[in-house]
Order: sequence, then structure tokens, then C-alpha cells
Amino acid sequence: MTIETLLDAVRFNDDGLIAAIAQADGTNEVLMLAWMNRDALRETLETGRVCYWSRSRKGLWRKGETSGQVQHLVEARLDCDGDAVLLLVNQKGVACHTGRRSCFYRAMRPEGFVDTSAPEISQEALYGR
Amino acid sequence: MTIETLLDAVRFNDDGLIAAIAQADGTNEVLMLAWMNRDALRETLETGRVCYWSRSRKGLWRKGETSGQVQHLVEARLDCDGDAVLLLVNQKGVACHTGRRSCFYRAMRPEGFVDTSAPEISQEALYGR
Repeated sequence: MTIETLLDAVRFNDDGLIAAIAQADGTNEVLMLAWMNRDALRETLETGRVCYWSRSRKGLWRKGETSGQVQHLVEARLDCDGDAVLLLVNQKGVACHTGRRSCFYRAMRPEGFVDTSAPEISQEALYGR
Repeated sequence: MTIETLLDAVRFNDDGLIAAIAQADGTNEVLMLAWMNRDALRETLETGRVCYWSRSRKGLWRKGETSGQVQHLVEARLDCDGDAVLLLVNQKGVACHTGRRSCFYRAMRPEGFVDTSAPEISQEALYGR
């Protein structure tokens, strides 16, 4: 069994991408959802460091390459129909560009959006701007 | 604040869809990833019962309408850039059509795919076939 055989089972969409959910190993907190192409998933499985595909920059996005907030892969789990992957990760620091641990912090409530967490680090500290 | 105002903040993709992650409230287990259009998300927020958009059937998909394995919404959380939503749910029974609790059970390991969980109920019991 090679990584290519594993990758052959993945059903990438018409854009060559698969949705990837990053979940914190241990706490099970869902950190973010991003996208991977075959190269990104291969690199992630080979190196153990999570690499996504940036749809905006149209390039491989090694999580943390700018911010230092890297994700180390514990296990990747493909879903039943092969078009989504769950990444159990050890997240260094925070996953969200806003400085929050998780990107999913905007609770949709009758009174409007309510933040469920606060930034743990400033964007300036993350990105130097 | 109305539900429509909340929905206006969602960035649906070119197909009018947003990725939705269902997570079990309490255990934080990630159950499945599916898609919602504006109508599905509105119905979910209004009724408290999770409704997706079936891309294969091209229609609203009230989770559990055939299998009985319904999802009750605890809270919906939009992500930082508005193109993915995390659904904290109470899952009745199992989320996966294979009878497993979670759709994410195919661990990608050097030796190949390894199932991380077993079915808890037969597909015959779920779908009567």
C-alpha cells in the first residue's frame, strides 16, 4: 500500500479539491475547514505537517508558514463517500487568522451573531502587520 | 435581528451552497460533512431540526427523514470568513448511512485504510432494504 493508492480512493471535486476539517486531537475542538488538492493531501500524509490548497492564492498553503501556528497531523480519516477528510491535529497556538483557537466562533442566535471565543493573540503578533 | 439578516452574512458559493459540519454536542465527535443552501440553513435555524441540501437528489434533505436518525440543532456557528458552518447537534442514533456513528471512519494509514469504528445498526434496519 502506497500513499498514491490511498489518494486514488479520494473523490476530489471538479476543481480537484476535497474539503478538510481540522480537529484538535484530545479536546476534539473543530478548528477550521479548508481545502486540499491531491498534492496537499499527499504532502500532509508524507510529512505529517498539514498542508492545504489556498483557493485565493491558488497555491499550496503550509499552515503556519507565515503565522507559525502549524498543525501536526495525528491521523487523517476519509469519510464514507470519499469527498471529505477529517484531520486530527496537534495545533500549535491558534488556528484562526483572527487569533482565536477556532474559526467557528460566530454563533447564529436569535439576537444576532455572538462570539463564542475571544482572540488569544493579536493579528499583529501573528502576521506582523 | 431576523434570521434573514443572519443568512445575509453567509457566503454561499457559486452553487449557492455552504459546507456544514455536524458535531455531536457533548462528545464533540465530528459526525459528517454535508451542504446547505440558504433554504436549508433557514429551515434548520427556524425549526431546530437539521436540514441539508442533497447535491445528488437536488432537493432539501431533512436528515433522518428516511432513516429516522434525525439531528436536533443545539447551535450553529459560522466561521471567520463565512463560508463554512459548524452545527452542534444532538444526533439520534447514527449519522452515517453505513450504520456508523460518524462518516469519518476510514483512517488513512501506511498499511492502507483502517476502519476506526464498526456499524452500530444495519443498513437494512436504517433503510428497509
